[in-house]
Amino acid sequence: MKKVVVALGGNAILQAGQAGTVEQQLANIDQAAGQIAAMIMAGYRVVITHGNGPQVGNILLQNEKASDLVPAMPLDVCGAQTQGQIGYLLQQSLTNILRQHGHLQPVVTVVTQVSIAADDPALKQPTKPIGPYFSAAQAQELAATQGYIMQEDKARGGWRRLVPSPTPLRIQEREAILNLLASGAVVIAAGGGGIPVVETERGLRGIEAVIDKDLASQRLAVDIGAEILLILTDVKAVAINWGSPGQEWLGEVHVAEARRYQAEGHFRAGSMGPKVEAACSFVEEGGEIAIITSLEAGSAALQGKAGTRFIL
Amino acid sequence: MKKVVVALGGNAILQAGQAGTVEQQLANIDQAAGQIAAMIMAGYRVVITHGNGPQVGNILLQNEKASDLVPAMPLDVCGAQTQGQIGYLLQQSLTNILRQHGHLQPVVTVVTQVSIAADDPALKQPTKPIGPYFSAAQAQELAATQGYIMQEDKARGGWRRLVPSPTPLRIQEREAILNLLASGAVVIAAGGGGIPVVETERGLRGIEAVIDKDLASQRLAVDIGAEILLILTDVKAVAINWGSPGQEWLGEVHVAEARRYQAEGHFRAGSMGPKVEAACSFVEEGGEIAIITSLEAGSAALQGKAGTRFIL
Repeated sequence: MKKVVVALGGNAILQAGQAGTVEQQLANIDQAAGQIAAMIMAGYRVVITHGNGPQVGNILLQNEKASDLVPAMPLDVCGAQTQGQIGYLLQQSLTNILRQHGHLQPVVTVVTQVSIAADDPALKQPTKPIGPYFSAAQAQELAATQGYIMQEDKARGGWRRLVPSPTPLRIQEREAILNLLASGAVVIAAGGGGIPVVETERGLRGIEAVIDKDLASQRLAVDIGAEILLILTDVKAVAINWGSPGQEWLGEVHVAEARRYQAEGHFRAGSMGPKVEAACSFVEEGGEIAIITSLEAGSAALQGKAGTRFIL
Repeated sequence: MKKVVVALGGNAILQAGQAGTVEQQLANIDQAAGQIAAMIMAGYRVVITHGNGPQVGNILLQNEKASDLVPAMPLDVCGAQTQGQIGYLLQQSLTNILRQHGHLQPVVTVVTQVSIAADDPALKQPTKPIGPYFSAAQAQELAATQGYIMQEDKARGGWRRLVPSPTPLRIQEREAILNLLASGAVVIAAGGGGIPVVETERGLRGIEAVIDKDLASQRLAVDIGAEILLILTDVKAVAINWGSPGQEWLGEVHVAEARRYQAEGHFRAGSMGPKVEAACSFVEEGGEIAIITSLEAGSAALQGKAGTRFIL
């Protein structure tokens, strides 16, 4: 039975334009869980990772609005909250669907810390906008009082906090995830890219940063010896010349070729860029195959019938 | 090696009167983790449960204050958030302390659902006040629009929502917790009494309720075959005639005797009452010994040198 790390895109849980009620999130999660249940019933051993952008954004906004009454929590703690929240909804939905089909595997959410280097250069160059939009005056005050790096988003007419996006080095809960998998459980881990921690002389310490979810999924997949990394997003495959007349969907692609397209600038930063990077790195580090496709095409892609499939 | 379920009181993480900054919570958690680390290093296999009252109260307040911008999450989801938050801080602190002493056990937080009966009579009689205080007008509106049951707290001059406090029947993640324990991990589970769920025809479904943390710990301890249930609170032992001239600390006590004191009204509801109930039930259901003591006296109590020790 092959091990698959399934990386769920943020849109699998909360779609753009949705307010984010629990009913909306549950309906979306039921859809995603249905697709993943099919993979489990087909015999794959599955670890699920997921994004948390909209959820952590909402929690940061709630923290901000109540900050005169309740001390705001740092970003690592907010990320841990989203792992509990999304993990709970996902494990409940997936358990229900599996049981309806007579499959009684436990589905378990593991709160996951991911190590980064204390001297990761990204820590000095915050690039990832998170949380609520502020006025110029508020932004100035946050920069002065909290030391936040703030960036103007002219399209939205507001300022947002920028946080670093460091490279994931090690999954702290690797051993527990492996033990649970070996026992037959389906595991939900490294939600939101994991909680970033540095390893200091006194031990682990949380960092206010956001690890890219696909890169964390790749790290996890290598660390637990998964054969397959399946990255689910909102398009059916990777394309070169995206949005131009010469647009071409990629089917099976050798990593060397994908790296060439990457160097030629075919994949956008913050969008397909990190997904292709994660897929290539996974195969280069010994993984059998990495796949990028849509949620709906996930099962077909595992059978070689859909998506972009990265091989050595 | 004996299995111990250690139930941490809410005051072990956030003390009365503290605002609840992450620094305060971390300092308290480091204290608690130090005590628990001593038990682990003495050879006990430990599962940790914990309260979440102040943390879920803060999240409910944040939900309320931002409710015009972000859809408020139901109580089961807020509880899941606190499992992620507290579990993360506790697993990090405990891992650090253990590693400083050369102990490399993984410490793992498992998001935990606890089944209750769909026809539990408590569901029709909400008794547990939670979250922020409201004015009479706000309370009336919440009752009308959300169907909340509201109760006036005259001492505090405000109204609070009441939710049911049903009986825990089954730990859904029992198997995963047992597998992790068998692999040598320390497990954090059933935070805040667990996320209450009912088992319906379509599967598990979250319920807006609060399960008593000590009763959930007792259920967990029985379900995983623990020999010891160690309930840590803010007094060194259980007393009869509490606060009166005849006050007497209990050392070793037979369950039959404890039940008699209980019937005589020695233990207050919402305080020592459910702790004594949990301790008695644990021993009656086959547990070797249940102990109620303070955080500081926990290790000594395991050696029979402190606390109130309930035996058959």
